[in-house]
Amino acid sequence: MACSQFEYVKQYETDDRLLPGCWIVLRLDGKGFTKFCELHCFEKPNDVRALCLMDASAQAVMREFQDIRLAFGESDEYSFVFPRECQLYGRRCSKLVSLVASCFTASYVRLWPQHLPDKPLAATPLFDARAVLYPSDRTLRDYLSWRQADTHINNLYNTCFWALVKSGKTNTEAHAQLQGTLADYKNELLFSQFGLNYNALPERFRKGSVVIRQRVKHVKQTADGRSKEKERLEPCVLHCDIIRDHFWQQHAELLA
Amino acid sequence: MACSQFEYVKQYETDDRLLPGCWIVLRLDGKGFTKFCELHCFEKPNDVRALCLMDASAQAVMREFQDIRLAFGESDEYSFVFPRECQLYGRRCSKLVSLVASCFTASYVRLWPQHLPDKPLAATPLFDARAVLYPSDRTLRDYLSWRQADTHINNLYNTCFWALVKSGKTNTEAHAQLQGTLADYKNELLFSQFGLNYNALPERFRKGSVVIRQRVKHVKQTADGRSKEKERLEPCVLHCDIIRDHFWQQHAELLA
Amino acid sequence: MACSQFEYVKQYETDDRLLPGCWIVLRLDGKGFTKFCELHCFEKPNDVRALCLMDASAQAVMREFQDIRLAFGESDEYSFVFPRECQLYGRRCSKLVSLVASCFTASYVRLWPQHLPDKPLAATPLFDARAVLYPSDRTLRDYLSWRQADTHINNLYNTCFWALVKSGKTNTEAHAQLQGTLADYKNELLFSQFGLNYNALPERFRKGSVVIRQRVKHVKQTADGRSKEKERLEPCVLHCDIIRDHFWQQHAELLA
Amino acid sequence: MACSQFEYVKQYETDDRLLPGCWIVLRLDGKGFTKFCELHCFEKPNDVRALCLMDASAQAVMREFQDIRLAFGESDEYSFVFPRECQLYGRRCSKLVSLVASCFTASYVRLWPQHLPDKPLAATPLFDARAVLYPSDRTLRDYLSWRQADTHINNLYNTCFWALVKSGKTNTEAHAQLQGTLADYKNELLFSQFGLNYNALPERFRKGSVVIRQRVKHVKQTADGRSKEKERLEPCVLHCDIIRDHFWQQHAELLA
Repeated sequence: MACSQFEYVKQYETDDRLLPGCWIVLRLDGKGFTKFCELHCFEKPNDVRALCLMDASAQAVMREFQDIRLAFGESDEYSFVFPRECQLYGRRCSKLVSLVASCFTASYVRLWPQHLPDKPLAATPLFDARAVLYPSDRTLRDYLSWRQADTHINNLYNTCFWALVKSGKTNTEAHAQLQGTLADYKNELLFSQFGLNYNALPERFRKGSVVIRQRVKHVKQTADGRSKEKERLEPCVLHCDIIRDHFWQQHAELLA
Repeated sequence: MACSQFEYVKQYETDDRLLPGCWIVLRLDGKGFTKFCELHCFEKPNDVRALCLMDASAQAVMREFQDIRLAFGESDEYSFVFPRECQLYGRRCSKLVSLVASCFTASYVRLWPQHLPDKPLAATPLFDARAVLYPSDRTLRDYLSWRQADTHINNLYNTCFWALVKSGKTNTEAHAQLQGTLADYKNELLFSQFGLNYNALPERFRKGSVVIRQRVKHVKQTADGRSKEKERLEPCVLHCDIIRDHFWQQHAELLA
Repeated sequence: MACSQFEYVKQYETDDRLLPGCWIVLRLDGKGFTKFCELHCFEKPNDVRALCLMDASAQAVMREFQDIRLAFGESDEYSFVFPRECQLYGRRCSKLVSLVASCFTASYVRLWPQHLPDKPLAATPLFDARAVLYPSDRTLRDYLSWRQADTHINNLYNTCFWALVKSGKTNTEAHAQLQGTLADYKNELLFSQFGLNYNALPERFRKGSVVIRQRVKHVKQTADGRSKEKERLEPCVLHCDIIRDHFWQQHAELLA
Repeated sequence: MACSQFEYVKQYETDDRLLPGCWIVLRLDGKGFTKFCELHCFEKPNDVRALCLMDASAQAVMREFQDIRLAFGESDEYSFVFPRECQLYGRRCSKLVSLVASCFTASYVRLWPQHLPDKPLAATPLFDARAVLYPSDRTLRDYLSWRQADTHINNLYNTCFWALVKSGKTNTEAHAQLQGTLADYKNELLFSQFGLNYNALPERFRKGSVVIRQRVKHVKQTADGRSKEKERLEPCVLHCDIIRDHFWQQHAELLA
């Protein structure tokens, strides 16, 4: 049959299994989100509803892929952590990268109307994904610290930038005023000029979102019609520091 | 600043650029679509509306990624062909694989209501993707022939299978009757027992979908309010043989 | 100039850097050594002089590549362990694999006359090499345990096999008698039939060779002609257990 | 048995098979040969005997690996071309890279006394190797043209450089005089100042070495003691242009 004559082309598929014994981080990143945000008039510097939609999409991904240990998100990016011993799809990189991107994007589109009911989705949101391996707990924690430190740096900058722009500066002027300045200067600027205490801003903006599975009580109907309280693990969104040890001591199971 | 202390983790990202000078085929495949089809009561053996939704999603992908030369789809899978000289995202595998999966899935969800207006989307559709390199025109054509031969084999089998099931057989009985039989037997079965001439079935079912860019006339409003006919390239869906030379002679630009 | 016109072909070279933060094991293996051993009439089951030549070649490799932390050898294979933080040649796999294979082979040929002065080298010895990454100390130690356990298994078998052959059995008979037998049977066979206490055989045969750097005293001539005793690190060959903890406790710097 | 407990570490070995259907070029390069040449007082700019030793080593590699289609060498580097359909060691990159490096180096050491009988080998020569894939005949030819153009450029420069140095300039002065100059200037310099017609220099220096298999007559003793002339394929060294079409037309079988 004709098929066998062509089937040799399967040999051109290469093996892209990720090294065993390493943490797998899958990081998703919005493609062209500056334009996407403008098109949908997202609030600046942070649109709470859009951030909640990101978090909800991440939760959907974690419900679909039970292997995921935790996730961290900020702005238009999200990182998912698969454990060292994960065998999902034989650790094939393309499978993991494409399925997580597919699931996140599909959830983002499906959940949009719940989070932004007054704004019709006007363009296709796209997310790229990459897999990065971390051989030790230390390097994994440093990766997550890197993302959370980045959240802080970007948010402090953006808070200043948009405060200046809303006060009448042009984008170029605002950028010029902030370029090369340190955190202290920016904190002081917000406080003295705009009466803003940066540390009083919502933790969601300053620390990003951590998603871990936690026991959640829910009410279940029993066969005889009575309702019964049960517990199950649900991906829950926290906004807390993950750079210091405290979080990891409280959730020792994450690195176990 | 804290950031630089953690930034070393970026070194763990690996370079996954695909070999230059080769055709890149990105194949998407529905995850768990047997269940997804049942959940949405897709018609058997082929649901025209669901196939059109696949085609429309592929067209959306081709509008987003202008580099794509052609695409071929059947059932719940689609292959996209990027040219040898493609430099999109520096040919980074994860970028291409994740973005095409993201775009296809998002389009599938967004376009669903247009194609299946009476059926609410009841689950998140997921597509995985992989990249395969073909160094020569011959191997690329053999890849596409492999997929179209597969379309034919699967469709002939499925057409028989569902005819038997609709006539009262169980799934097990239908499967047992067909196992190991040749194409001639199946054609004869369809004709003698169900009055079906297999070759008269829609080409969409028998040959799958080929998407290529073709000049399409469209009417454009000019500045002074008059309408003017113009041409532009649009991804168009064909259902034709791509195994024989004829198609490639007619569309010599595809392999140029 | 003509050169630039062709220089684009450099783009086809791919990046093969090994993941940072992992132990790198480079394992060399003799190609076609069964034939090579016969050609040079190596003693069976173990040729001490040939094993010493392997060890000396490994020491030469360790002198050339100061990054190597330790090495383990048995029969016609040798494993070299590069530390997690190694940056030699940017951790490029092909560089490491080819240079270690090149250095080992060159040393084997150069040192041959010293170790086997009565036998001219009659064929080109070839060694292949591969790189394997181990993310944790545990997996690295298990790798080395695997090789040493393999040494034991092979040596016990070969000792029995050649005792039987030397006692008059054919190769086929000897093989048949041993097939599927356990260690106890083989130990008993050696003792009762050949008066051999397996555990009294040289450790070199039973445990293979471990090469680590140790402080070695050497005498150096000073400028004024006197000789002075100094210390330097030299790769030294040991034949000891590396499966149990004791070795690693004694040489805690190896995994540090 | 202990072995199985550790055998899981084999899973950490990754699949590094090279894409089918592409030409494989294995390029070897001497490590630290500037120093190696000085140590052995190689003649400058070209040491014929050392170049012949390189060629003889390449011929030994081609005798060992019958798959190799052709080779090109210059200075301390050599490229070996394996055909598109090559299945040697399942096209595993590390196997090919290490074995060719091993074979070349071993041959270089073994053949040294024949080519440089008056100079004892005073250091271990090392060669690294890398594999590069070329998907088309055009890119393969351009690769080889790149190397031959490089031979010419380097040789012209080196010929001038050493002529200047031998005439009394320091290395720095010679380098300064040549920096940024074109080929015409260098040709003129050689002719007017040193009476050297560059194009009359040996082709070996100007074009490097091409090794291809050619029918060679040899005399064989028959069973009854008579001698009989036979033909066999032997790797032969040529010094000719491989940039223009002529060579490839004469040896059409090389790209077939």
